[in-house]
Order: sequence, then structure tokens, then C-alpha cells
Amino acid sequence: MSTPGFSSARPAYDLATLRARLDGLRMEDNPALIRQKSRDFYWYSPVLKRQLAEVTADLVVSVASEADIVRVLAACVELRIPVTPRGAGTGNYGQAMPLAGGVVLDLSGMDEVLEIAPGRVRAEPGAVLAEIDAQTRSRSGQELRLHPSTYRSASIGGFIAGGSGGVGSITWGGLRDLGNIISLTLLTMEAEPRRLRLTGDDLARVAHAYGTNGVIVEVEMPLAPACDWLEVIIGFESFAAAAAYGNALGEQDAILKKLVSVIAAPVPQAAFLRHRSFLPDGRHVALVMVDALAREAFEAFTRRFAGAEILFRSDRLAPEEAKGLPPLYELSWNHTTLRALRVDPAITYLQTLYPFPDQLALVSRIHEALGDEVAAHLEFVRFDGKVTCFGLPLVRFTTEERLAEIVALHEAMGAVVFDPHRYTLEEGGMKQTDPDQLAFKREADPHGLLNPHKMIAWEDPAFDFSGARTYLFPGIGA
Amino acid sequence: MSTPGFSSARPAYDLATLRARLDGLRMEDNPALIRQKSRDFYWYSPVLKRQLAEVTADLVVSVASEADIVRVLAACVELRIPVTPRGAGTGNYGQAMPLAGGVVLDLSGMDEVLEIAPGRVRAEPGAVLAEIDAQTRSRSGQELRLHPSTYRSASIGGFIAGGSGGVGSITWGGLRDLGNIISLTLLTMEAEPRRLRLTGDDLARVAHAYGTNGVIVEVEMPLAPACDWLEVIIGFESFAAAAAYGNALGEQDAILKKLVSVIAAPVPQAAFLRHRSFLPDGRHVALVMVDALAREAFEAFTRRFAGAEILFRSDRLAPEEAKGLPPLYELSWNHTTLRALRVDPAITYLQTLYPFPDQLALVSRIHEALGDEVAAHLEFVRFDGKVTCFGLPLVRFTTEERLAEIVALHEAMGAVVFDPHRYTLEEGGMKQTDPDQLAFKREADPHGLLNPHKMIAWEDPAFDFSGARTYLFPGIGA
Repeated sequence: MSTPGFSSARPAYDLATLRARLDGLRMEDNPALIRQKSRDFYWYSPVLKRQLAEVTADLVVSVASEADIVRVLAACVELRIPVTPRGAGTGNYGQAMPLAGGVVLDLSGMDEVLEIAPGRVRAEPGAVLAEIDAQTRSRSGQELRLHPSTYRSASIGGFIAGGSGGVGSITWGGLRDLGNIISLTLLTMEAEPRRLRLTGDDLARVAHAYGTNGVIVEVEMPLAPACDWLEVIIGFESFAAAAAYGNALGEQDAILKKLVSVIAAPVPQAAFLRHRSFLPDGRHVALVMVDALAREAFEAFTRRFAGAEILFRSDRLAPEEAKGLPPLYELSWNHTTLRALRVDPAITYLQTLYPFPDQLALVSRIHEALGDEVAAHLEFVRFDGKVTCFGLPLVRFTTEERLAEIVALHEAMGAVVFDPHRYTLEEGGMKQTDPDQLAFKREADPHGLLNPHKMIAWEDPAFDFSGARTYLFPGIGA
Repeated sequence: MSTPGFSSARPAYDLATLRARLDGLRMEDNPALIRQKSRDFYWYSPVLKRQLAEVTADLVVSVASEADIVRVLAACVELRIPVTPRGAGTGNYGQAMPLAGGVVLDLSGMDEVLEIAPGRVRAEPGAVLAEIDAQTRSRSGQELRLHPSTYRSASIGGFIAGGSGGVGSITWGGLRDLGNIISLTLLTMEAEPRRLRLTGDDLARVAHAYGTNGVIVEVEMPLAPACDWLEVIIGFESFAAAAAYGNALGEQDAILKKLVSVIAAPVPQAAFLRHRSFLPDGRHVALVMVDALAREAFEAFTRRFAGAEILFRSDRLAPEEAKGLPPLYELSWNHTTLRALRVDPAITYLQTLYPFPDQLALVSRIHEALGDEVAAHLEFVRFDGKVTCFGLPLVRFTTEERLAEIVALHEAMGAVVFDPHRYTLEEGGMKQTDPDQLAFKREADPHGLLNPHKMIAWEDPAFDFSGARTYLFPGIGA
């Protein structure tokens, strides 16, 4: 599989005509601001940092309604100008970075919550996840099933187009699972954009496709009960004990959980600065969010683990202790990476899956082989009906060659790597493209203008779909 | 392990004094009515039918308040008269049958729902499950996580004291799981009954203990969202295909389910009389209750199974078709047995667990070995964090010896049998007694008056606790 190249030299788009066509819409052409809205958290990867540093759009267009989007898409199709849809820009791997320039379509203004009903919410794509929950919680006692650690800034549309799960996945699996999205409505990239509502298997055309297959204009998501989530940090003398605890807690079917993360020392002590006083040196930790109604059940469960020590409980904090602490999910998933990077810019990371049922032994073997160069970070999830863990191991970066070796070692030992140092869908490894997916791309974006250079299958007519590996989002026809 | 005998000759209890002590309480001494309130569905077992046919109490006392219960218990302790607590009498295996006579304590009048809050309900033990749900649903959009197929008649206290799970276990596991009961309050069988509130691991002292360790006077249970449950029957040409479908549906983490039952032909056609017109001859079926909001996800999932045919959908019925149909859960769990027994009184059953991960192969091997003598009936559940299935296979009964052979064959091939032809806790095999459990019995019922002859460990000082097998409810110290 070869990465399609892109060039900073690009066609001279007819921006003057585009501006005229879009008169009345909010357009940004200050280069510094355009540059800012042309990036995501790609810089977590030293490889992408090198490759994508110069990427920038020509224009940012902000929209406030579906009618606005129709105008932008129709004009850009006519003028053959690429369009890269963008929510809050909290993604990674350059997902929403405009490799061919053109327009960044800023959807953050389309942020209305349209309907709240028992079990579901309808919203516009730019609505911020925490804002949706604030409304569903206060009006109905419900909340979204899943969110990334960027909950307080990420948009729902961006989460669906670029995310895969996260906080909540220990109960609900991922966005890949049938049932975690009810419906998506999108506009096609055609001279006369069509409005399509997708459900069931058709959702795979758009979920985690980086906005290459249409512009999401409305989402309908299932809701879960909004529990009072108790935050707990449990400390262990050995990493293996912490991992075994996390796995076993994941398998407690009747204790509602939102987060079960396990992080090896010394990362918590070094990176969780505002929680530092709760974290004795040398202790490996599990971060847990558990239904406060299951408090006694959780305590009884934890007592079964000799050596498990509760270091932090959100329900036992004095008000002055609680002040200034970030929510626990902002120590988890890619926020662990972010916090580690902040204290040590030489850190980068991988994204892995340790397949059931050998996940704990595999984690142990891999980290034994890699020693201090790679610190373990596990996120327990339900995956295909079983509890297992993803990894976001923290890598002390030296060279791109060594990083590739570490990836290869993970794969050789049996882990699946979703490579966060690649900007294409296929090489990232979460999303499988297949002939059906490609056929839908031809239908929804016949000129290949949506977020170009992200789908190898589109760029390379000889692309081989048959590569056998585990994808989070299998092909439609898989 | 030997079954403790009990004798129909029993001490002459001082009933006259008891009656005087309980003046003002409702007492039943009509022998026919006492007999009726002294039995459960023990007659599903031809073995227990023979053993327990003559069992009857001396008196039924109905109570309406905790103060009433205190009076009954104190008087019976003083007079050394046994007390067998009883809810609605929908249990099995003679659980609540008064083997030593004495008093049946009828708790059905203590049926108040005391408090409904987000995520939980508090109720008196006699409250009928469906009645609790009617209130939690209308007042809060919530419902109980778990219920037996006798939902419309069983009491919550009886379910906890004698049940193990059932409808809902595919999502929540069983009553054995930490978190599926929040707290239980009970009265001890002492001269001055004490009121104890149990949570966490201490719940194991009372859950599925047949009322031998105290009288439950209040329960606090977690609630789940009250979905609009879609009822679906799916037909298959082969039983193996139906079982594989059920297992895979069970593993769909994001499709909310309440029931996944798989039943081999010709049982559905013979026994589900009011659904008969939906059930073509020869078809093996899956009975499914799934969240109506996941309709499209469920349809997409089902389309992946070649040969899976939707035979029945509750959302596609004309009103005249829907009339007179029982709810789908009344074709499942032990209602399958009941319906089969009604059309063929020579039928009996077993209760089995097919351990993960080999459950489907094991089911297939066992039923191949047994042929038409035993029809397969699977109930998919979450068990220790994985999806697997219980069985309630339907046995064409010939002799007790052959029945024992069939049990032995199941065990020899690798299934766990919870023998429904035994009336003791230990031999039933769901409940493990251990020294801690026994110590609590000594504390809560020092004279051994609560539901006598059900706990071998109490009756036999030489009882060996060490028997290694799988119990649904492990010992407290396990």
C-alpha cells in the first residue's frame, strides 16, 4: 500500500468567482486564521508533523444552515474546488486537513439540538458533545452513549466522521457497532446536492470516512441514562495487577461503567499534574467512572483484589480539593497522550488493539520486549461482544525508522495497530474501503472534491482491497 | 451429598397459642387453601411431584406491614414453629414449600412501591414485578433490569429469594452479579427480630437463599430505561443456524436487547398455540425482544444471516392479529417448559449452562447424542462478562433413572446442570453454601426455623463445602 502523494503546488482555484457565488456567507481569508482552521492534532505524530506542516486551505467558509451548505457545495462543484468539512478540529492524523487546499467548510455554527426524545437525540453536526449532553441531561435525564476525551470541545459530526468510540465504549462498544448511530443525513457533493438519510448498514458509508463521502448535516444518536458518574483512581504495585483489575471490572455485567483505563507508572505521576497529590510514586493506576448507584457493588468488587488501593474518589473530595481538577475522562484516551506530550514533547504514541481472549498476556509480552521506551496505556472496551482493551502506548520517539520497528514488533507479536502516523483512511487502518464504499464515493462525490488524498482506493485505480487485517469499520460489503 | 429427609409426621406445634398471639392478623386454616398456598411449580419435576405431593403448612398468615411480620416471627420463635416466607408462589423446585409444616408467611399483601428515583426503585417484597414496572414506567420512563417469565404474577421478593435472572439477562447478567440488587432489608428470625440492611457482598447471604436466612421486608433495585420493546420471531432451517444467530445477536454491544431465546422445532409449533399461524412446520426459532429504536440496526444485522426469516414482528401486526397473543417473554425461559407441559404432560426439563467459549459446539454435541428424547431450548445471557447460553432442554420423561442418566450425560460432556429435580439449595446447584453463609444462618435464624430442610449444610454438621463445581451464586467467602 503506498501513500498517495500530495503537492503543495496545486491548481489555481477560481477563488474570486467562488467568493462572488458565496456572497453573504462568512468567509475567512486571513492566512494565519485559515492555517489555524486547517489543522487538527496531527502534531501528536512527529511523522505527520513533518509531512503536513505546510497544509493549509485557501478559504474558510462558515455556514449556519443546510441552505448555506448547499450553496457552498454547488459552487465548489461548478468551480472544481475541493471542500474539507470540519467540526471543531479536535481530530487527529490530519483527518480534516485540506491536503489539496480549497475550502475548509466550518460547520461549527450549525450547532442546534433539534429534538430530544426517550432514547435518542437529533442534532446538527456542529453541536459540541458536552453541549448536547447538557441539554439531554437537563431536559430528559439522558446523555450520549459515547464520547471522545475531547468531549468539551469536539462536535458530534466530527466525532462520527473521524472518531471511533472512547469514553462509554466499555459499555456500548464503538461507533462501528450497529445501533450506536441511529441515522445520518448528508448532502452529496454534486452540482445539485442531494439530501440522503442513511440507517443500518448504510451508515458505514459515512462513519469514520473523514468526510470523504458527503457532508453530514444531521445526526440522530441513541441516548443512555445520565448516571451520576463516580470518578475513582485505584493504585496497584504492579502493572499486571492493574490490567487484570481493569479487565475484570470490564466484565462486571451489572455495574454500569463509563471508563476503565489502565496506565503504567510513571506516566500518571509525570503527566496528571493536577491529580499529582493523589498519585504515590511507582503506583500503576486504573481510572474508573462508575454509576454512583453501584457504589457498594463497586467497593465489594474492588475489595476482592488484594493490593488494590483507592487513591482518589470524587465523592470524598473536600470542595477545595475538587477545585481545578479536570474531569477524569480528560486523563484518559488521547488526553493521556496530550498530557504526556505537554510534559515531554519527545513523546508520541500508537493505537493498538489486543485481541480477546489473550489481551492481558499479549500486553505483558509486548511491554516486556519494549521496556522503558514504550509505556503501557490500556483502554478497556466491549469489542464484538467481549471485553478486551485498546492500547494508546506512549512511545519515546527517536527516529521514524525506530517508530516503524515498534509498529512492526506490535504486529508481529499479535497486536493490531491503527497507525496514527498515517493520514489516509486505509493506512490508518481503522476504516476498510471496499468496492461498495468506493461506489458510494462515486455517487456522493463524483468529482473527488471532498477531502482529497485521504482515500487511497479513490486515487489509485489498481488499489488492492483484499488486504487481510482487522479493521474497526469493515467494508460495507464485508 | 445426601438429601436431608423430611417426614410428614412432625411435631405438634402449639397452633392455638400462635393464633392467640397473632390475633387480628389474617389467618387461613381451610386445609384446601393452605395446601394451595403451600406449593409452587414443583410439579414441573416428576421427581419432586412424587416427593412433595403431601407437603402442606398448618396455617397461612398474611401480613400487611413490617410490624405484622415482627409479631409473626417473634411468636413463632417463642413457640418454635417453622416459618416459610412466600411471595406469589411462582417459583419452582419446592423452594417455598413448608417441608416441616408450620406457618406459610404470605407476603403478597406487602406490595407497595415505596420510592422511584433515577436509576432505582424501593419496594416492599410482595409487589408484583409487572406492577412495579407499570409505576416506574409511567412515573419515570424506567423499568426493572431483570424479570422471570412469570413477570405478570411473581413478586419482587420471591424473585430475589428464589430466582436467578431471566428476561433482561442478555444485557445485565443475573441476580448473582454485583450491582443487580442495590440493597435488601430483612428481619431476622429471633425472639426480637432485628432489621438488617445488606449491600455489596453481603447480599449473597439472602439472594437465592429460598428465605432460609431472614425475611426480606424491603428491596432496592436498579432500573434501566423502559424501551419500546419490539418482539420478533426469526425462523431457521437448522437449529445450529438459529443458535449461531442468537449468540451473534447477543454479542451486538450496541443493540439493546431484553430477550434472545432459541428453541428447536417442533416445540414452538406444538407448544406456542396462539402464535401457531406464524410458525411454519420444521422451523427452529429465535425469540427476540429488541429496542424499537434499534429497528434498522437489528434488520441490518439479521440480513447478514442467509436463511434467517422474520416470521413475526409485533410492530407489523394488524390489531385483530395482536389480540389474544401473550407477550413474547411468556414463550421463553420456564414458560416454554410450561407451554410444552400443557400440551404433553410427559415432558419435563433440565436447567443447564453451556460454558463460554464452546457453548455452541457443546449444545450441538449434547443434542446429537440425545436425539428426539431431549429438545433444545437456549436462553442467551451475559455471564461473567461474556455472552453464552443457559439451556432449559425439554425432556421426554420415562423414568427417574433415565432422567438421572441424562443429567449425568450433560455433566460428562461439559455442561453445568442446575438440577430442577432437587429441593435443597445445594443439590439444585445454583447456590453455594459455605461456612460464612452458614454462620449468617446461625445469626439470622439461630433455631433453624426458616424454611427448614432446604439447606443441607445446616442440617448436616459433617457437610463438605469443598465440592468443586460452578455455582450461580458462589459462597460469600468464595
